[in-house]
Amino acid sequence: MEQRVTIITVRIEDLEAASRYYTDGLGWDSFLAVPGEVTFLQVAPGVALSLFDATGFDADAGQPLRFPFTLARNVSSEEEVRHIVAGMVDAGGTVLKEPQAAVWGGYHAFVADPVGLCWEVAYNPGWFVSDDGTVRLGAGEP
Amino acid sequence: MEQRVTIITVRIEDLEAASRYYTDGLGWDSFLAVPGEVTFLQVAPGVALSLFDATGFDADAGQPLRFPFTLARNVSSEEEVRHIVAGMVDAGGTVLKEPQAAVWGGYHAFVADPVGLCWEVAYNPGWFVSDDGTVRLGAGEP
Repeated sequence: MEQRVTIITVRIEDLEAASRYYTDGLGWDSFLAVPGEVTFLQVAPGVALSLFDATGFDADAGQPLRFPFTLARNVSSEEEVRHIVAGMVDAGGTVLKEPQAAVWGGYHAFVADPVGLCWEVAYNPGWFVSDDGTVRLGAGEP
Repeated sequence: MEQRVTIITVRIEDLEAASRYYTDGLGWDSFLAVPGEVTFLQVAPGVALSLFDATGFDADAGQPLRFPFTLARNVSSEEEVRHIVAGMVDAGGTVLKEPQAAVWGGYHAFVADPVGLCWEVAYNPGWFVSDDGTVRLGAGEP
């Protein structure tokens, strides 16, 4: 299993204040922002920081998480999601959300490591990374 | 201010269990590991995941943090640390730890965004990133 983070998703209670700080305050670019729901900021080649409204975060997780953030790895197919999840379980991970269709149009699963850090393994057909590491999200992502 | 994350540092209460999962279980490489203190895993070009023992995490922060993780940006000099921290304060950030010498031999500061997410701005003379994005840490890092 390739060791890779593609999205750092943080549970944010005041998304407007947080988004304003990064975009208006620091002048960062958001490559996708849906007011009241989510703000995506690229923070490294192929890596996004997702400021995710707490209500949406909780609904997506479907249960309280040990940490108020998740690390995601985006992969290339639904089959790859299932394969990687199986590997995480073999290694001692615990499935929190079985591989399934996601409300944002893709396919994903949540797996916690032994200390409760939750990883999302996701196939999002709208997730694109250019050769230079630039991330963009097409239709279908929240 | 460049929008960049270089280290995702997570407060871990059972570092041995977490480290074993990633390295023995998933087979990931750690580019630096100090048992009982910290395990570093590269997770993207120029980006590391740092599993940081809770005791060390708390001592480094010097106060309870709103989130049990921090995002770090490594920069090139002490002066750049101070410059970036000033920009974060102008944007509405709150200094949690003034720019100062770090116990691991470099220089750093902690600044919280308006919702309490803590960023570390650090100059670490032992932090190297190759042209291909490979990260390594030299002497001086915990």
